Amino acid sequence: MSESNRRPDFVRIIPHGDNRERRVCRDCGFVDYENPRIIVGAVVTHGDRFLICKRAIEPRREFWTIPAGFMEIGETPEEGATREAYEEATAAIHIRELLAVYTIRHISQVQMLYWAELESETFAPGVESLEVDLVTWEQIPWSELAFPSVKWALEDFRSYREGKLALPSRRST
Amino acid sequence: MSESNRRPDFVRIIPHGDNRERRVCRDCGFVDYENPRIIVGAVVTHGDRFLICKRAIEPRREFWTIPAGFMEIGETPEEGATREAYEEATAAIHIRELLAVYTIRHISQVQMLYWAELESETFAPGVESLEVDLVTWEQIPWSELAFPSVKWALEDFRSYREGKLALPSRRST
Repeated sequence: MSESNRRPDFVRIIPHGDNRERRVCRDCGFVDYENPRIIVGAVVTHGDRFLICKRAIEPRREFWTIPAGFMEIGETPEEGATREAYEEATAAIHIRELLAVYTIRHISQVQMLYWAELESETFAPGVESLEVDLVTWEQIPWSELAFPSVKWALEDFRSYREGKLALPSRRST
Repeated sequence: MSESNRRPDFVRIIPHGDNRERRVCRDCGFVDYENPRIIVGAVVTHGDRFLICKRAIEPRREFWTIPAGFMEIGETPEEGATREAYEEATAAIHIRELLAVYTIRHISQVQMLYWAELESETFAPGVESLEVDLVTWEQIPWSELAFPSVKWALEDFRSYREGKLALPSRRST
């Protein structure tokens, strides 16, 4: 058995006792409940600078992001955001506030993004990053950000720090 | 093909390119990424009273809960909480604040619970409820609540209203 040899064959039907269509495998009967998935991450600051990572993986390889990724089972969102900062930037962070909850409908994501502070100036690219940098607001590579929500998070953090935004920010597409 | 005739046969292996064990179907190769699932719901108030629902379904049938359930794809958490209030209590609500983010590790749930206000005193049991009631704090059936997080949410709301808690509350088990 190799997971890459065969492709599952799904149909959309309403299972018995349910009230909406679900993806069900024709071969084995598995019901693939498509719940939204949670992305956890953080705007990581150190004084007036921001921790950013150049992506080593697709999608958006070579574009810049904040540390973020899929929340895993067995962790809290804060623990997941802390893990992602370590995996992507070898950075130890201290979670401060829930900065934002963004819903990206077309890819069924809920992003829970925190404001966190870097515990020291020690950081380095993890396996998913080509480079990691600590930059001022003016140095952020705005035209090379990986995803719209990276820009939202940075802007929302700035609005929050200027006293113009109550947390958490809510945005959706 | 009937989804109830066969049971999927999963094994736990580390798929190529991954760094942790996932559930993979022996029959069809489907990788069942076990991401945490999001529960959305609300502490719904009307003046000094709280909207509670007696559950018509397992688990915890006949115990009392606040309107809450699995977030579906294509909706924001606020829309999901609003939908659940309608499905369980035929109640129209107005979302006010993100009250709490609770992580229930052993069942891989992240609960995003809001404070919402009832738009009118119109409510009735939906298909998942036996009864719906609007009760004062003293009338809440504390010993007959369905889940610990229902008690947490009600208590956190009260602490918030007394100025003793900054939102969102974070708890985990």
